Amino acid sequence: MNNNGSEFSALHTDKYQLTMIYAHWKNGSHLDRKVYDLYFRNLPFGNGYAVFAGLERALQYLEQLHFCEEEIDYLSRQPENFDPRFLELLRRFRFSGNLYGMQEGTMVFPNEPLLRVEGSVMEAQLIETALLNFIGYQTLIATKAARIRTIAEKEMLMEFGTRRAQESDAALWGARAAYIAGFDSTSNVRAGQRFGIPISGTHSHAWVQDFESELEAFRTFAYAFPDDCVLLVDTYDTLKSGVPHAIQVGKELRAKGHELKGIRLDSGDLAYLSKEARQMLNEAGLEQTKIVASSDLDEYTIQSLRNQGATIDAWGVGTKLITSYDQPALGAVYKLVAREKNEEWQPTIKISSNPEKITTPGVKQVFRLIDRQLNKARGDLILEEGHRLDEEQPLTLFHPIHTYRKKEVHQFRAVELLQPMILQGEQVYELPSIDSIRQYYNEQRGLFWEEHTRLLNPEEYHVDLSKDLWDKKQTLLQSIYQRIKNDNLPGSEDHPQNPMI
Amino acid sequence: MNNNGSEFSALHTDKYQLTMIYAHWKNGSHLDRKVYDLYFRNLPFGNGYAVFAGLERALQYLEQLHFCEEEIDYLSRQPENFDPRFLELLRRFRFSGNLYGMQEGTMVFPNEPLLRVEGSVMEAQLIETALLNFIGYQTLIATKAARIRTIAEKEMLMEFGTRRAQESDAALWGARAAYIAGFDSTSNVRAGQRFGIPISGTHSHAWVQDFESELEAFRTFAYAFPDDCVLLVDTYDTLKSGVPHAIQVGKELRAKGHELKGIRLDSGDLAYLSKEARQMLNEAGLEQTKIVASSDLDEYTIQSLRNQGATIDAWGVGTKLITSYDQPALGAVYKLVAREKNEEWQPTIKISSNPEKITTPGVKQVFRLIDRQLNKARGDLILEEGHRLDEEQPLTLFHPIHTYRKKEVHQFRAVELLQPMILQGEQVYELPSIDSIRQYYNEQRGLFWEEHTRLLNPEEYHVDLSKDLWDKKQTLLQSIYQRIKNDNLPGSEDHPQNPMI
Repeated sequence: MNNNGSEFSALHTDKYQLTMIYAHWKNGSHLDRKVYDLYFRNLPFGNGYAVFAGLERALQYLEQLHFCEEEIDYLSRQPENFDPRFLELLRRFRFSGNLYGMQEGTMVFPNEPLLRVEGSVMEAQLIETALLNFIGYQTLIATKAARIRTIAEKEMLMEFGTRRAQESDAALWGARAAYIAGFDSTSNVRAGQRFGIPISGTHSHAWVQDFESELEAFRTFAYAFPDDCVLLVDTYDTLKSGVPHAIQVGKELRAKGHELKGIRLDSGDLAYLSKEARQMLNEAGLEQTKIVASSDLDEYTIQSLRNQGATIDAWGVGTKLITSYDQPALGAVYKLVAREKNEEWQPTIKISSNPEKITTPGVKQVFRLIDRQLNKARGDLILEEGHRLDEEQPLTLFHPIHTYRKKEVHQFRAVELLQPMILQGEQVYELPSIDSIRQYYNEQRGLFWEEHTRLLNPEEYHVDLSKDLWDKKQTLLQSIYQRIKNDNLPGSEDHPQNPMI
Repeated sequence: MNNNGSEFSALHTDKYQLTMIYAHWKNGSHLDRKVYDLYFRNLPFGNGYAVFAGLERALQYLEQLHFCEEEIDYLSRQPENFDPRFLELLRRFRFSGNLYGMQEGTMVFPNEPLLRVEGSVMEAQLIETALLNFIGYQTLIATKAARIRTIAEKEMLMEFGTRRAQESDAALWGARAAYIAGFDSTSNVRAGQRFGIPISGTHSHAWVQDFESELEAFRTFAYAFPDDCVLLVDTYDTLKSGVPHAIQVGKELRAKGHELKGIRLDSGDLAYLSKEARQMLNEAGLEQTKIVASSDLDEYTIQSLRNQGATIDAWGVGTKLITSYDQPALGAVYKLVAREKNEEWQPTIKISSNPEKITTPGVKQVFRLIDRQLNKARGDLILEEGHRLDEEQPLTLFHPIHTYRKKEVHQFRAVELLQPMILQGEQVYELPSIDSIRQYYNEQRGLFWEEHTRLLNPEEYHVDLSKDLWDKKQTLLQSIYQRIKNDNLPGSEDHPQNPMI
């Protein structure tokens, strides 16, 4: 079987995953069991939340993941000269571990595990790169889309980015992520077919140039789609040519019992042009004809146009959404948090001179604490898996870095966010339809105060560690610092960390 | 046949392409022949050139392009209620037009056609979205990679971006584009298999955490790869733990007849740490051990680190390259430039209130004028296809917008940049190997003065129109303005273009 053109190639990974697996195999430790968390450290765009997306893609990948003969053959020809017994192991490989994950559409925050992978070091390392790649991109685009939806309020949002997306997959999965977080449609036909997202579009400037005159072009289009006709009016001159011709065709359509659905503005001063065009349409009795705008739009330009009183009813958003133009990567990470020793999970830690980059050790669950009276989320609490919360007792949360910041919650529901998705290689989670994911996101978002969801300077949402977990992290940190100090390795005294910091 | 998971789905397009084709079909004009240019209007990153890439992908797409039954079935269920005869036309569809294109690795500039598509309006519209998507992304990444190569000079550059790429395809094709423009390797194993690019990688922090101690982790890795061992030294403490342990393993390797290949720094003050680490390695006699750096690198951070005297021998570049972080879209466009009328190509134009967005009409060829004595490119000249240049006569170029800017070239070679790639649906161009493309890019780049290739404030390279072409463009512009004026459509007087501008 040839995975070459497949979207689920086992080689969609970094080389170092394979060399590490090989080194483990040579050491006899490739089946040692480990736990990894996938999370991000900082919210994109200065936003107050992110929208988790990409799980379905990750689950399909894990289900189909295997090495085909061509891939094994390629690996056999690498300079590492992999042992044939190792290649045989790869040939028989299937993912057989556990995956816990949040539901798509969940509002998520920095440093909380979005996915938790439990499995052999071999399988858990192999999948790291692909999981980060899938989850990082869709979560990023869903978050960007959520911001645009916030600004557009109830107006129609159409995803138009395919041509500017970073290759084919991004167009497809970005369209999906945008729909989850509130877009109404996509121009990407493949996404329409695959996910059942409504598809939409108008016509291009080339359509107008295809004919002897703009009027002929508009008439021909209206003839084909009398009830779904949106005319692009800026090929030659928006107000002197495009809008008057559209009005003429609108009147002709009405004479035949149809209504001109809309006009599209794609260049120039959209605020001014939309107001003039609206007035011209109204003066012609075409009050029902909508005005669609496109042209490098994002949450900032849409906000600005609305503030200027632009009379735009629907927005086509392309480049800025599909590439997440102002921050094109989420920067998700995948970190080892525990390894099995004597049949128990032993927490592990990674230290960094940057305190934010220190990992939180242990097998963890995330609880969302929802005020029962207000039905609002008060904060998330990360606990060691298996620890329970007593919903009847008041709970004091404290910030994991700025520990003086405390708050008390009571009368809360504690909702477990990490759910079993795959157990021992078998998917146990039933994938919801994309419309249920979209609805779930909407409901979840309703649990958050506007202070957290506003675009500018949102209030930070609390994601805290339990006291137990915080203590264990500090103990582990100290024990490692102590070990480094005791080791006092040659050279380390003459070459200290930069004394400036 | 199911294209669903295929990278070449015919539905990798915008819906409006299909509705326009349908409207043409209903009008009987779907087989009318047209010419489209694919180009970009502005260079990314303030760079002085771009590196054309993505052609191979585009050719493979055009060769395989067809609608499978599932796709037809999906389209048949759309609200447009497409006529079954139209769906039958799609079912039999294959690309049968002509494609002229530049070779991958060509140095390219704004407003010159990179691809020219000649075909029925049906086929030419259908492929627009995919061509823009493929060419835009690879050209963008190749250009970004070329900038990084400029700064890194002869040092090793490794592409490490897969986990942060915008989904799976971007990782694959971005790795290819980076290699074309001078990267030495990629971490993406799939790209290694598919394109024959060297793959590289070290190990992760998790590898170190997998073991009881850093020393044990380093020893185990060295055991597996005694001659290809690069140790990541910042899991706990770079200078107090990582480097001393790496030195210890380096000495143990030497005792067994091997050399420690390198250490990798992935966080902290890379300038300071690299200098201290270099000294520690040298004091231990490990002068040959290289220092590899990674950590959100791009041309700016690499330049800064080199300026600070960082002792780094090889650079792993991820997020900032693979997402083209500082400008994640090229913004390529695809514009109708001619349509067949009475068996002749009739030039067409699109007008915009932004002069840069006005298209250049006609079927065109791009000539690169190379000074025969200096062997340097003096400028590109866009001519109507079929017009020849007399290399023996001096030639006066003038800027197409700022026409007072003129320069004279003589003793030049005129090289045609657009070559036939597909004629009547048949590929006539033999795809070069990726290493020849890489070499071609290198040679081409040598034709350009440093003034054009420097990163900051490069001198603008001349891309001019022939006098004939410029005159025709002006005539066409004037005739359309005249028509709009003569039409004097109702409403256009009361609603003028914004009088402010």
